[in-house]
Amino acid sequence: MMLTKNDRFAALATDNAPGQEVRQAAGDVGNMMRGEVLPGRLVDFSHGDVDAFSPAPGSFERFAEAVDAGARQAYTEYRGSADIRAELAIKLAAFTGAPVSAEQGTILTPGTQGALFLAVASLVDQGDKVAIVQPDYFANRKLVQFFGGEVVPVAMNYMARTAEAGLDLDQLRAAFEAGARLFLFSNPNNPTGAIYSEREIAAIAELAAAFHVTIIADQLYSRLLYEGEIYTHIRARLPEERVITIMGPSKTESLSGYRLGVAFGSAPIVERMEKLQAIASLRAAGYNQAVLRTWFSEPVGWMEDRIRLHQAIRDELLGVFREAALPTRTAQAGSYLFPRLPELALGQHDFIRLLRHQAKVIVTPGSEFGRTPTAFG
Amino acid sequence: MMLTKNDRFAALATDNAPGQEVRQAAGDVGNMMRGEVLPGRLVDFSHGDVDAFSPAPGSFERFAEAVDAGARQAYTEYRGSADIRAELAIKLAAFTGAPVSAEQGTILTPGTQGALFLAVASLVDQGDKVAIVQPDYFANRKLVQFFGGEVVPVAMNYMARTAEAGLDLDQLRAAFEAGARLFLFSNPNNPTGAIYSEREIAAIAELAAAFHVTIIADQLYSRLLYEGEIYTHIRARLPEERVITIMGPSKTESLSGYRLGVAFGSAPIVERMEKLQAIASLRAAGYNQAVLRTWFSEPVGWMEDRIRLHQAIRDELLGVFREAALPTRTAQAGSYLFPRLPELALGQHDFIRLLRHQAKVIVTPGSEFGRTPTAFG
Repeated sequence: MMLTKNDRFAALATDNAPGQEVRQAAGDVGNMMRGEVLPGRLVDFSHGDVDAFSPAPGSFERFAEAVDAGARQAYTEYRGSADIRAELAIKLAAFTGAPVSAEQGTILTPGTQGALFLAVASLVDQGDKVAIVQPDYFANRKLVQFFGGEVVPVAMNYMARTAEAGLDLDQLRAAFEAGARLFLFSNPNNPTGAIYSEREIAAIAELAAAFHVTIIADQLYSRLLYEGEIYTHIRARLPEERVITIMGPSKTESLSGYRLGVAFGSAPIVERMEKLQAIASLRAAGYNQAVLRTWFSEPVGWMEDRIRLHQAIRDELLGVFREAALPTRTAQAGSYLFPRLPELALGQHDFIRLLRHQAKVIVTPGSEFGRTPTAFG
Repeated sequence: MMLTKNDRFAALATDNAPGQEVRQAAGDVGNMMRGEVLPGRLVDFSHGDVDAFSPAPGSFERFAEAVDAGARQAYTEYRGSADIRAELAIKLAAFTGAPVSAEQGTILTPGTQGALFLAVASLVDQGDKVAIVQPDYFANRKLVQFFGGEVVPVAMNYMARTAEAGLDLDQLRAAFEAGARLFLFSNPNNPTGAIYSEREIAAIAELAAAFHVTIIADQLYSRLLYEGEIYTHIRARLPEERVITIMGPSKTESLSGYRLGVAFGSAPIVERMEKLQAIASLRAAGYNQAVLRTWFSEPVGWMEDRIRLHQAIRDELLGVFREAALPTRTAQAGSYLFPRLPELALGQHDFIRLLRHQAKVIVTPGSEFGRTPTAFG
């Protein structure tokens, strides 16, 4: 069945997406309150707090130099400045443990969201089946549906154990047997903070090879690993052309305001992504690209300190949730927690509105991540 | 007939698009040379020269303030900062002569290319007919085709007279009679620099009203009007919901490196554009948005000086082309010229490569603008 553009845009509802809270009317939320508005200042958990953490050293200076450089940096190739791609390819190869081609296999994008959009657009055609983890980053499902693809859900039992993400590998195999030729997943998982174990990554790679599946690996938080955690890069386990990996300096580095992403790996996919970027936004903002020079080049100990600070926040919040008897996976990485709520006397969206109005806490509803619309997390 | 993604990406060839010249191998171009390489430095006409013209005063300072402001400016709503939209709506209403809703009818995008992409994606469905001027901005055709639309060409006889753009209104009517319900055009026309006369805009508006056609008006260069030129805004001639207008600070203001665009007008179209932006790039880079505060707020006389300098370049180049007997429309606005070449002993693309290699002049081939592939301009 072919979707019309009305269907496609209806599926793109953004009313409850992170960052859009300011556009929601408070409505009659006051009538649902039990007790008074709680004291304290507003806390927004829907996105990273670049005020709490200073940006990577030198980032603003690199931007300022790019403005001074002028046209050379304002009008880069669509896939981004060749110099900057050359620097990045070396760093990303070292980080992921597999070669990266600066010339053929790297593209700079407006944020990792830009990279995800271009990658999905390059690979998903009307009617294509795509395996998507439940729960996973809220845009994955929407992207596949926008391009006419069919989401084949694969469960992740993220509460079952903590040394693995808990991906249901039988369901993944069944998705591939049913015809899915693309697997899109975030690792660390957004929103649970689960990291896929080496065994799980090896099993995914083996299934992908057997079924000729292409992988889009969203590794946005793969630098923000908490103490003792081990990370396995799937691109080092499959032929280069089978995987496109997406990263970017964002919340971890407090650089989200520059909107920078990078996709690397498969040359044919990067080629398509660049063609589409040429009509979608031309390029990642030229001056902003220069900020990537600071990435993976932070001073010694800087990232370790940043991780320690994030881990302290995680531990404090986990303590609060556990005291309140809300089952919550211990995030192994990233800056999210995904608590499970008990039965509520009101619906999920009303609860979220009350949380904002009465407790001054902004969160993203669990339904955004692809679970049943009545459950919170 | 339904296009596969292979067809769609094949139609997106960017090899000869502006800015991609650095990715072209010189090949055996030397064998085609008559005479030697000419002396002089490289001149690149494929994009604006932000080195020759300094950016609008205060732009970098506004950016720096936004970085200091932190999260508030890093994470704006997807349609862009409410404060900045409020300022812009007033300025754009004054400029175009019709009201602009900051809240419902304005969206900030990554460049005007981002705005064009979102607008076309919001309005074009598989099989939809779209009227497109020939010649016009190179991406228009590609955008329509990427979303499965069918381009219905409408001729512009831009060499016929200079007080009008020369749009063939009979062909436009025929396109609407044939079922086109969207008309996408740039005014001033890119690449010829032609401005549509008041009579032409009135006629387009009348036809659009009669056939219930929606208009995407790309007005990127509508501030850069040469001496004595008059400009008519089509959005002031039609009901608000029928028109989406696209502008941005770019070559005119030497701000291209910040990648900023704004689309304004029809609230339902802006609503869709925001939904798509949420999965395409989230938002125009947060810090960059602040640069829009300088736009339409330049010091008195600043824009007039800028226009005078551009006009001097236009006149000098027109002199060169006329001396060489190359018929060229006198651009009324914008920073492009579109000379027509005589019969050549070699193909268009070889000529362009020779021009680059032998004369050190980079230009964009006329075929990119939708004319027959063998003609230059």
